[in-house]
Amino acid sequence: MHLFRFGKKDQERPGVIFKGKKLDVSAFGEDYSELFFQHDGIARLKEYVAENEGNLPVVGDGERFGPPVTRPSKLICIGLNYRDHAIESGAQIPTEPIVFFKSTTAICGPNDDLIIPKGSEKTDWEVEIAVVIGKKASYIEKEDALEHVAGYLLHNDYSERAFQLERGGQWVKGKSCDTFAPLGPYLVLKEDIENVQELGMWLKVNGELMQESTTSEMIFDIPYLVSYLSQFMTLLPGDVITTGTPAGVGLGFKPPKYLKPGDVVELGIEKLGTSKQHVKAFGNDQK
Amino acid sequence: MHLFRFGKKDQERPGVIFKGKKLDVSAFGEDYSELFFQHDGIARLKEYVAENEGNLPVVGDGERFGPPVTRPSKLICIGLNYRDHAIESGAQIPTEPIVFFKSTTAICGPNDDLIIPKGSEKTDWEVEIAVVIGKKASYIEKEDALEHVAGYLLHNDYSERAFQLERGGQWVKGKSCDTFAPLGPYLVLKEDIENVQELGMWLKVNGELMQESTTSEMIFDIPYLVSYLSQFMTLLPGDVITTGTPAGVGLGFKPPKYLKPGDVVELGIEKLGTSKQHVKAFGNDQK
Repeated sequence: MHLFRFGKKDQERPGVIFKGKKLDVSAFGEDYSELFFQHDGIARLKEYVAENEGNLPVVGDGERFGPPVTRPSKLICIGLNYRDHAIESGAQIPTEPIVFFKSTTAICGPNDDLIIPKGSEKTDWEVEIAVVIGKKASYIEKEDALEHVAGYLLHNDYSERAFQLERGGQWVKGKSCDTFAPLGPYLVLKEDIENVQELGMWLKVNGELMQESTTSEMIFDIPYLVSYLSQFMTLLPGDVITTGTPAGVGLGFKPPKYLKPGDVVELGIEKLGTSKQHVKAFGNDQK
Repeated sequence: MHLFRFGKKDQERPGVIFKGKKLDVSAFGEDYSELFFQHDGIARLKEYVAENEGNLPVVGDGERFGPPVTRPSKLICIGLNYRDHAIESGAQIPTEPIVFFKSTTAICGPNDDLIIPKGSEKTDWEVEIAVVIGKKASYIEKEDALEHVAGYLLHNDYSERAFQLERGGQWVKGKSCDTFAPLGPYLVLKEDIENVQELGMWLKVNGELMQESTTSEMIFDIPYLVSYLSQFMTLLPGDVITTGTPAGVGLGFKPPKYLKPGDVVELGIEKLGTSKQHVKAFGNDQK
């Protein structure tokens, strides 16, 4: 069973993919929120779906996918967590995880348009695997970390490199623009992934393969990251942690390659599905 | 009329300070959340209080103050926004605002204990004035910025300097620990502050004056900051922006002075009230 959300922006309803069918579980009465995860929602939903499978409406193929979880309290990012990407960025290999936040207002559906921000000339892509927290975590050990994880999803950590690196100080300015965090298509539950550290990942721009790697190349693996973060802040159910990108981002080319209106970005991670964003210029309708 | 919240942690109820009295407005039926600000809650609440003043229960003096607003979508911070603090930190004077986030799990009531995180030896204080957003803001001009502000409150931007500066990369690790963001005592509405850029501010540790300045010393003023941030991310109603600290933090002393269990931190900003935190060691009861 995978979890997804569908419908118009900010009016999404919960669905599940069950035995290959997309089922509407609005009648379950809960969205995929902090409270859902906190109060054992996954186990309760599994039971509900098993009992009601035959009566659940099928979600039409025309429906938009939204982000698979409601707005998290935090969207936490790990920087330079693949050796080859650190090298292409001209950065040192980190000795500890580099942590930053994206604004949660950047979150959108997996196939929503990527809107190039006003004044941007350096909008870049980053395929990443993201972790969804299932249970509150504070000062937890690495061995216990996966107990606090609900599952995984595909993320494109869009980044404006001039805003991130040339505008003074910290990275958040280049990470937080609207539509800079497509999540999904769906949340794959932890128990459905045998080894999260051996999943292939890729990203194409206009059909050209730009990034291709596997999660085995991470410098700091997922249990380490969850434990590490929990030493500095309390992780809440529904929080999203995105774990860094491999080589092949636009910044790494000589000269760099950045996105322009009309481009199409496609990405995928093994077992976590694919997503596709059409690149648009900022227009007055977005304000 | 000032807005505050009272009661046990995570069970706070809304109150107002009106004609010098603390009144319980639970019966108004809304907490001070994103939706409250978005749907013109302040104007509606003012009307409600004027009509029901005589019937509202008085809040007892023994009640704990919580943070004056519910958990915001973002707690955005401006770094090095007072010239003297940039100098004491050994940093360059910024030419653009330095932006970072604190985890919203750091938020607590104004007089809650400050818990020194596990492994911390460099927990430091920072008196700051914080802005609460009243109306969604995206790509707004400086001239229009204050239309998007609901009001102001007192904040202590606690910071673990080793986590912030010696653990690799970005600042968020040193800013996000639980209890690192006391907010309040109350939200003062924008219309009740004639000039937000001329308020005195101070902070004492164990009675000794450590920070003393005024908001006139900011490098980037509040309208500029709100407009600037809105170029990089969408600000939502209820979001909190904290605007930097003047000189006098522990890091600035030679040798530096950091907090230890038993210390008492008191701070205040003219018109925004005062707060007081007792410093405690991390104990198992906090986990």
